[in-house]
Amino acid sequence: MGDNNHDADALAEFLAVAVDAAKSAGEIIRKGFYQTKHVEHKGQVDLVTETDKACEELIFNHLKKYYPSHKFIGEETSAVFGTDELTDEPTWIIDPVDGTTNFVHGFPFVCVSIGLAIGKVPTVGVVYNPIIGELFTGVLGQGSFLNGAPIKVSSQNELIKALLVTEVGTKRDKATVDATTNRINKLLFKVRSLRMGGSLALNLCGIACGRLDLCYEIGFGGPWDVAAGAVIIHEAGGLVFDPSGGDFDLMSRRIAASNGHLKDALIQVLRESE
Amino acid sequence: MGDNNHDADALAEFLAVAVDAAKSAGEIIRKGFYQTKHVEHKGQVDLVTETDKACEELIFNHLKKYYPSHKFIGEETSAVFGTDELTDEPTWIIDPVDGTTNFVHGFPFVCVSIGLAIGKVPTVGVVYNPIIGELFTGVLGQGSFLNGAPIKVSSQNELIKALLVTEVGTKRDKATVDATTNRINKLLFKVRSLRMGGSLALNLCGIACGRLDLCYEIGFGGPWDVAAGAVIIHEAGGLVFDPSGGDFDLMSRRIAASNGHLKDALIQVLRESE
Repeated sequence: MGDNNHDADALAEFLAVAVDAAKSAGEIIRKGFYQTKHVEHKGQVDLVTETDKACEELIFNHLKKYYPSHKFIGEETSAVFGTDELTDEPTWIIDPVDGTTNFVHGFPFVCVSIGLAIGKVPTVGVVYNPIIGELFTGVLGQGSFLNGAPIKVSSQNELIKALLVTEVGTKRDKATVDATTNRINKLLFKVRSLRMGGSLALNLCGIACGRLDLCYEIGFGGPWDVAAGAVIIHEAGGLVFDPSGGDFDLMSRRIAASNGHLKDALIQVLRESE
Repeated sequence: MGDNNHDADALAEFLAVAVDAAKSAGEIIRKGFYQTKHVEHKGQVDLVTETDKACEELIFNHLKKYYPSHKFIGEETSAVFGTDELTDEPTWIIDPVDGTTNFVHGFPFVCVSIGLAIGKVPTVGVVYNPIIGELFTGVLGQGSFLNGAPIKVSSQNELIKALLVTEVGTKRDKATVDATTNRINKLLFKVRSLRMGGSLALNLCGIACGRLDLCYEIGFGGPWDVAAGAVIIHEAGGLVFDPSGGDFDLMSRRIAASNGHLKDALIQVLRESE
């Protein structure tokens, strides 16, 4: 099993190191964010690629320096730095820039997402939006925080008063688009309203701090979008689960989240919309 | 026609007075925004009502003091302060809190919207988000600004690379919901992605500053949602028009907006989705 028994102090140190990495990466993102409007399209694509790579290298190198034995899964250059497979070993799961479409367009929902899974369980999470200046953190057993203040999920217990967030994803084949809009159609009769922010990691943090009540997404990029958010929600008193109602699987590219009151109702309405 | 020939200095003074009113109202909104999570549901509804009323009174009283002969159209208490009819007279068109669902849930897209129409033409606009701290302003012939820096619409000229924003509105009858999701379904094959932020006034400002490329909404609350945004977009080099392709009508509860390159393509795809 390796060195997987970490006490509270060790987990707090993992968090501190991850926060440092996220803040440094955030500086790079902030700089690029305000440049994208001033370069032509080709230049924008390059800027995303460069920012992504620079942030990933910075984060990997920072974490690797402190934790050379840990594993790494990242969105971008996993061939160089990391692995595709999640084991029980402590594994950092990183999205250097979540919300790349927002980054290109200058829409301010962009973040770094750094999660640490131990024994395949999301254990430490940092999600940092350097544009709006919001730092979400969570550590298993130690609570979740927004800019240092404790957060908790909403207390909403009526589906019809719940605010839902989801995304339309990037696949545009007819079957996927029809399934996406059909699900939205069915859900609109059951919930108060719908938001789409363009960053799954930030959507999950929205659930954690109670701004949003319900979230689901099916077929997103990979575990780096959700590893940090999952522990931040858990420690804010929320639930993360498979949209079918089964257990959440970090590697499945399927997620749903809510407070405890709304879980069953969300699962039921998602089933009805299949 | 009344006193409708205002020189640039007069328009700039209208703007300065409106900005003062928006900033004072913003203080009230900010205070309420951080209280909503700490009161039960009934208390939340009261808080919205109180905040709406307090902001509207503050704005009306402030503007009325400077411009006692001007007309007023507001979302809330138009019976007391204002009128339902738009004439050629200088008319302030006000939404004291746009994004009330966001306000209740603590989602940070909430704003004050203050527009001045003269001769039925949106002439001065202020949209202030006191949570994120973004002040959008525009004056006919004098440009548009975000926190004092000039803004312009995006230069995107390919529909498939455009970021669209719309909302699902508040009506939940089957015909409206089906039309809404059918339109989204058709559009998803044509654009890059979709955002829903929950504030039409802020969506329009997103077009003005080039974060978003395309916006439409059909059947929203009233002219107070769009009067300020329309001039801010116009002065940022963008276009505001009816989703059918006809001229924008401030009182019609129908709006579309984009840069000049994308207007025809947006109209065409909206027609195809009817």
